[in-house]
Parts: sequence; structure tokens; C-alpha cells
Amino acid sequence: MGQVRTLGEIARHVGAVLEGDPGILIRGVAPLEQGTEGTVVLVAEAKYLDRLAQSRASAVIAPPSVRITDRPVLRAENPRLAFASVLELFNPLEIFPPGISHSSVVAPDATVHPSATIFPFVVVESEAVIEAEVVLCPFVYVGRRARIGEGSRIHPHVTIQADVRVGRRCLIHPGAVLGGDGFGFVFDGASHRKIPQVGTVVIEDEVEVGANVCIDRATLGETVVGRGTKIDNLVQVAHNVTIGERSILVAQAGIAGSSRIGRDVILGPQAGVVDHVSVGDGCQVLGQSAIIEDTAPGSKVAGTPARSVQEEFRVIAALGRLPQLLKTVRTLEKRLQALEARLGGASE
Amino acid sequence: MGQVRTLGEIARHVGAVLEGDPGILIRGVAPLEQGTEGTVVLVAEAKYLDRLAQSRASAVIAPPSVRITDRPVLRAENPRLAFASVLELFNPLEIFPPGISHSSVVAPDATVHPSATIFPFVVVESEAVIEAEVVLCPFVYVGRRARIGEGSRIHPHVTIQADVRVGRRCLIHPGAVLGGDGFGFVFDGASHRKIPQVGTVVIEDEVEVGANVCIDRATLGETVVGRGTKIDNLVQVAHNVTIGERSILVAQAGIAGSSRIGRDVILGPQAGVVDHVSVGDGCQVLGQSAIIEDTAPGSKVAGTPARSVQEEFRVIAALGRLPQLLKTVRTLEKRLQALEARLGGASE
Amino acid sequence: MGQVRTLGEIARHVGAVLEGDPGILIRGVAPLEQGTEGTVVLVAEAKYLDRLAQSRASAVIAPPSVRITDRPVLRAENPRLAFASVLELFNPLEIFPPGISHSSVVAPDATVHPSATIFPFVVVESEAVIEAEVVLCPFVYVGRRARIGEGSRIHPHVTIQADVRVGRRCLIHPGAVLGGDGFGFVFDGASHRKIPQVGTVVIEDEVEVGANVCIDRATLGETVVGRGTKIDNLVQVAHNVTIGERSILVAQAGIAGSSRIGRDVILGPQAGVVDHVSVGDGCQVLGQSAIIEDTAPGSKVAGTPARSVQEEFRVIAALGRLPQLLKTVRTLEKRLQALEARLGGASE
Repeated sequence: MGQVRTLGEIARHVGAVLEGDPGILIRGVAPLEQGTEGTVVLVAEAKYLDRLAQSRASAVIAPPSVRITDRPVLRAENPRLAFASVLELFNPLEIFPPGISHSSVVAPDATVHPSATIFPFVVVESEAVIEAEVVLCPFVYVGRRARIGEGSRIHPHVTIQADVRVGRRCLIHPGAVLGGDGFGFVFDGASHRKIPQVGTVVIEDEVEVGANVCIDRATLGETVVGRGTKIDNLVQVAHNVTIGERSILVAQAGIAGSSRIGRDVILGPQAGVVDHVSVGDGCQVLGQSAIIEDTAPGSKVAGTPARSVQEEFRVIAALGRLPQLLKTVRTLEKRLQALEARLGGASE
Repeated sequence: MGQVRTLGEIARHVGAVLEGDPGILIRGVAPLEQGTEGTVVLVAEAKYLDRLAQSRASAVIAPPSVRITDRPVLRAENPRLAFASVLELFNPLEIFPPGISHSSVVAPDATVHPSATIFPFVVVESEAVIEAEVVLCPFVYVGRRARIGEGSRIHPHVTIQADVRVGRRCLIHPGAVLGGDGFGFVFDGASHRKIPQVGTVVIEDEVEVGANVCIDRATLGETVVGRGTKIDNLVQVAHNVTIGERSILVAQAGIAGSSRIGRDVILGPQAGVVDHVSVGDGCQVLGQSAIIEDTAPGSKVAGTPARSVQEEFRVIAALGRLPQLLKTVRTLEKRLQALEARLGGASE
Repeated sequence: MGQVRTLGEIARHVGAVLEGDPGILIRGVAPLEQGTEGTVVLVAEAKYLDRLAQSRASAVIAPPSVRITDRPVLRAENPRLAFASVLELFNPLEIFPPGISHSSVVAPDATVHPSATIFPFVVVESEAVIEAEVVLCPFVYVGRRARIGEGSRIHPHVTIQADVRVGRRCLIHPGAVLGGDGFGFVFDGASHRKIPQVGTVVIEDEVEVGANVCIDRATLGETVVGRGTKIDNLVQVAHNVTIGERSILVAQAGIAGSSRIGRDVILGPQAGVVDHVSVGDGCQVLGQSAIIEDTAPGSKVAGTPARSVQEEFRVIAALGRLPQLLKTVRTLEKRLQALEARLGGASE
């Protein structure tokens, strides 16, 4: 923050068409209602125009279809994308001075790139590799032979267990645990015997992992999170799960062991996927749903167990009429009985 | 513990009417069945009297309506409140010696009140403010410009990201993450582009935050938790959510982005609230329910999606009869068909 | 890894009958499809035989019933158990050199057995007891008077609050919080007053606790997790809960205050148990279900609220036919009305 840009510079940066004075000075982005002079706000759809009227923002990002005449407009086909770009412009990724804090413990045979930043109270175990421009915040644990790819940033209190590989430009939020043991036991007649979990976790490039997320290591082989996938807080990913590229797992969702999630899947909040099933590419799973069988690519499903969204919505609507239906049927039964009684002898 | 009080002292402290000898010595509080000589137990309702008979407790806290004659009684209109007071009397909040552990890393330009206690392995970043009588337990991370209000206690492994403000007399349990990035992305045609999350989190006074809770920072502006609100373990509060005063969020509940929770709301365990909705003051949401639209103040709702509790209970009861209903209707259909067949020609 | 064994040695170790050359050298275990020369793989059921054909593994663990003739077989009645044994053989529990890192803070009056291993950045508070062969990983917090039993291993970022007792040979995964305050408040007319939580948590022997699990201390008395019980990631166990021996709590399940879970219970993923109920020995609760009342031993239940699995499955099947049922009944009503109209005068 603190930096000031002209509207013209901003328009060029985000590739927007400017309607208005390019010389107007902008010092940041504001929420729509709280826009003050010198700020730019977003009106992504016409329905927000009411709120714009009350805003004192100096400029607006809006799509071509929304009519705005009372202040300068940055016209963009994808206004939310333009908004993200303006936010980036005013809030560039912070650069930290490289180096290893003397309050950290880095194994002598770990490899740390000279451009990496290691804050105090970090532990990097033997043979771990920390690539260029990685940032390890305080209280990060990097286990033996683990590897953190170029430009990734690991927030406080993240645990990266032995052998786990994190790709490039990943962002791992506080408290996430990558590579905890899979939950695997076999009953030996007297107790649950632990199945050693000797596989690992592979996080591909540009993955974001939310706070307190748990991604378990595979029993054998790898638990994989595909490139560009984004995982919200408190999500559970069990052992041997594979998640494709660009999928979205919303908060508190959970995926049980060995299931395969395709690419471009959206798993809604608090949704669950049982073990050993496949969720096809592009599936959308609504919040609190439970996937209990293979789901075809492109499906949009909801409910426990999940059905197609259309069907689930019909069922939900019908459910509200169920108590009345019970009464109706009871009445029908009586009326039918009465008719039968009247006609009784006739058909014998 | 260890301290001994007379029943008379206790009665005065909690504002109870004592029936019995004020000189009896009490050294603590016990669970009802495990009460031994020298302990006081709680009988909040008459239904617990059976268990009292087996207890060797020296005194009982009970409401006026419950008849007890076999031992001294502390009579209180709100016996649970009296019980809490007696517990406080025997277990006062521990006082820690002020000072900053030399095993912690506090930025030179952070402000730490001399009465604050900073345990070993704490990080306080630049320009952060730690007010009077704050306690920071081991492995607490306080980011840049964050502020912890007077008398608040932050348990081990809590992450408080940059700019987050925690009010006075708050209690933050282990592993909570305040101010992680909101989960905001915009698809640019090839990948999910991160929307920089440049807002913050404001926790007002007297808030309790459970273990491993996640409260995300706002995209712009603030995510707010109102004064006196209590949040149980593993709850998710997304970016730009506002929660009013004195609300209760039970374990594993989740609130999606930009939703507004009123004051005095109770959100049951594992319940969910979708994004951009409003849950009115005093609403009660039963466990595992999903709020998918605005909910009027004072509503009591349940189910996925949530309906009024009365309606949901009727639906649940009716559901159990649904398999039989299908059979009944099939039979009715056949009987009707038979009647129609008999009368068939007649109406043509 | 790295060690090589003969098939004969392996057969003896796991108590399997070997069909094939005992001198064949094996250097590890592989996933079925990825088996290479020198590895052994598991074919637990005949349905996996297809995949075995593609595998280059040198040997197979299989039950007597599955016909395999193309390579050596280790025959075991319980092939999964044999598989776990072979994994153990090749991946023995790592032994760490005993001693206390000089980068840790251990109270002078704590007791640490000389055979225990304390890694850097660990805090052990006053009067805590660390028994023989315990391993405390970096960033572990052990509160006052807490006790960690012989051979237990505590992973990074675990918080063990004051007075908590962990049994022998337990495994506690990263970020777990044992002994956070129970969620207990009483409304005093103006605010939610905290009920001091002065009880504790007892984890019996051979318990495994997953990553970011929360087990709250009792208000008074103890929250108990029985011997040999296994808890998956992100599970919530509230104050005063008791869990019997050998139970299994799958990821993201939650148990509310004072409920009693029997022994040999399986609580499925994302399932919930309300407060003050009892779940009998051997109960199986399917994922996302909600237990809201006492559940008889041996029950197998599903749904919100939970019913017997058979009943719930019937309801689920019937639900899919509900929208059609509504139409059918509407038609029946019209047909009945038509009949009644035709017969109308007749019965008057």
C-alpha cells in the first residue's frame, strides 16, 4: 500500500478500456460501500449499482454491459479478473531478504538455496531440499528428504513430513500437515495392527493448501494433488488419494482413501467422498453431499448419498409435501374402501 | 486447588442461600457421583437426585425446587451459574510472571507491555502490539502490525497473521489460525488466479476461539467476530464473514464467505452456512444443518437445506413411513383399477 | 529400505506358507501395479488378479483361495495382516538417539527418562513426566504435570495441555491438541460466562491420534480414550466423552460433550454424536450420520438422525421415487373422484 498510480497506468496494467480521465490518482482498492476518494471499487454485476451510488470511490471496474456515468470506469470483459490484477498491483507479493535465521535448525546435509528465506524457529531435517526463493515462516517443520519447490511459501506451523515433495509456487497455510500417516489398520483378532504408511505425498506446482488441512501420505506410492488445485481450510485428504489439476476443494470437505478426483472438480464445503471411488473430470459436488460411487465426468450432484442436482432438488421439494401426502393417501384409502363397500357384492 | 473454604464463604461468594452448617470445610468441586468428603457437587435438576444418593459430597448446589435434606445445600436460582462461580473460586485464573523469554524473538519495533508474559519460542513481528497482561504461550506467532488486547491469552501454536486485531480478555486455544488468506480465486481461462486477500480479521473483546479453528482474513475490509462470541474447536469462518455478539458456534461448523451471522445465534455442530446469506439474531441452527438462504431472526431451523425445526421433524417422522407408503399407493392403484374395470363400460 | 531378505525369511517372519523358491531376493513392498523385480505385492482378493498380470513383482501375498501360478506366493489366511507384517519387516520403527536437544526448554523439575529423545524446539513444563523411549518431535508442547507413557511418539506441533496423561506406545500426529478447554458456558443474563474446565484427558495405551484432532479436557473428571482406539485426522472429541477400547473414529467425525462411545465402535467419516448419549459396544455408524439418542450395542446405523442401516437404505431408495409418487397420488385422487362422481347419487 502507500503507492499511488494513475488510472491510466492501472488500465494499461489490467488491460481494461478506460472511460474517464487517465490522470486521476488512485492509491488502492476498497470494498464497494467503503470506497473513498482515491480508491477503485468493483461492480461485477448490475445488481450492485445501488451500492455504488453510496460509494465515494474515484473509479469503478465494471463489465461493458453495466451502465455507469457518474465516475470513471475501467471496462473489462472479466471484471473480477481485472479486480484481482489491480489488487496485485497495489499489493505485490512481499519479498523477504534471503538467508537462514541463526535461531533455526537446519541439518548440515540439507540443501538450502541461497535465495531462500528461513525465518526463526524452523527445522529442516537431513537431506531435505529447499529450492530458490522459498520462504519458510517460523515454526515450519521440513522432514527428512522432503523437497520444497522454487518460490513456494510455507506459513507458520506447517508440518511437512519426511519425503513429501511440494512443487513450485505453492502456498501452504498455517497448521497444514502434509504427509501424516494414512489411517490404515488391520485387525489381528485382538487389536488394530498398524499398517506402516511408507508412501509419500506429492503436491504439484501452484497448489494452495488451506490452514489446518491434512493430506496423508500413501500406504505405498503417492498421494497426489494436481497442479493448480486449490484446497480450502480444514480439508481432509486421505492416503493414496489422487486429485487432478485445477480442482477446488472447499472448506471441511473430506476424501477417503484411494479415491480419485479428476481435474476441474469442485468439491463443496463439508462434502465427503468415500474410499476407492472415482469422481470424474469437471464434476461439481454441492456442500454436505456424500459421493459413495463412481461419478461420471461433468456430473453435478448433491445429497447424501449424492444424486444429480436436478433429482436431488426435486426430492427436496417433494419432501416438504411428504407429511401432507401421508394424510392424502389415508383419505384416499378410506374413500376407496367406501366405494368398494358400496359395490361389494356386485363383483362376487 | 489445595485451598480450603467454609461453606459460608462459598455461599457469600456465589450469592447462594445456605441450608446447613456454614462452618463445614470444602476443598473443591467434584463430579456428582465422585463427590467425596470436602467436596461440593451440582444437582441442577431433580432427575439427578438418584445419583446424589450415592455421592459422599459434603454439600450440594441446587435450585430451590429440588428437595434435598440429607446434606447442606447452596440454593441458587441458576445453579449452573453458581457452580461456575464455585469452580472459579477454587480455580482462579493463573497469574504468570511478566516478562519476555530470552528464547523468543520479538521485533525491536514491536510494542510489548511490561505486564505481558511471553513464553519461550514465541515470534512477535515488527510493529505488533502486545497489551497489558497478555499471555503468549510457547510457539505463538504474532504477525506484523497485529494487536493483542489487554488480558488476552493465546495458547500454544496459535498463528495470528499480519494486521489481525484480537480484543481484550480473549482466549485463543491451541492451533487456531487467525487471518489466513480468504479462499478467493478467479478463473482466467487457464488457471485459478489468486485474488490477493488484503483485508484482515477483527476479534472483539471476550471472544473464545477453540483449538484448530480457522478464521480467514477478508479480501478487502474485515472478517469480524463480535464481542462475547464463543467458537468451539475446528470451526471454519471464511473471509468477510461478520458474526454478531454473544453467538455460539459449535464444533466443526462452517460459515462461507461474506455471510452475516447475527447476535445470540447458535450454530450447531457440523452445521454449515453458504456464502452471502444472513442468519438473523437469535437463530438456532441444529447440528449438520445447511443454511442456504437468509434466515429470519429467531428462527429455529434444521436439515439440509434447513427448514423450520417443526417442519423438519414432521418430514423426518414421515420419512420413516415412506417405504410403506409406496406399497400402500401401489395397492390402492390396483384396487382402483379393479373398480374402474368393473364399472368400465358404464360411463362410456 | 535398502535391506534385502529372502522369500524364505519373509515367509517365516509373517507365518505364511511359501509356494515357490525360498531363495528369491526381495528388497521391499510395492503397490500392485507398480511391482518390479525384487518386490512383493498384495492380492487380497481374486478381483485384483487382473492387475497382477501387469505387475512385474517377484512374489505375491494372497489368501489360499486365490489361484496364482505365474510366480511365488506367500499364502496367508489374513493376507492384509501378512502384508502389514512384511511392511514392518522392511520399514522397522526408526530408533532415535536418546537425549534432550539443547535447543529445547525443559523445566528443571520435569522428569525425562534418559532413553527419551527430545528434538529441538520442544517445551516440557514443570513436573511433567516423559517416560522411557518417548520421542518428542520439534515444536511439541507438554504442559505442567502432563505425562507421556513409555514408547509413545509425539509428532511436530502437538499440544499436550497441563495434567493430560498419554499412555504407552501411543502415536500422536502433527497438530493434535490434547486437553484444550471443554466448550462450557452458562448464560448469566448478559454474557456467556465460562465454566472453568478443570478436569483432564486420559489417553490409554496404544492409541493413535490423527493430525489436527482436538480432544478437550473434562469440566471435572476425565475425558477418556480407551486402549487401542484409533482416531483419524480432524476429529473432535468434546469434554467428558468416554471412548472404549479398540474403537475407530474416522476423519472429521465429532462427539459432543459427555457422550459415551463403547468399545469396538466404528464412527464413520464426518459423523456426529450429540451430547449425553451412549453408543453401545460394536456399533457401526456410517459417514455423515448423526446419532441423537442412545444406540444399542451392535447396531449398524446411518442417516441424520441415524436409523438402522436397512431402514435408512429403504428410505433412500424410496426417496428417489417420491417425486413420481406425488404425481401418482394426484392421478389416483382424480380417478377416484371420477368414480365417486359417477356413483354419486347412488349411495345417498
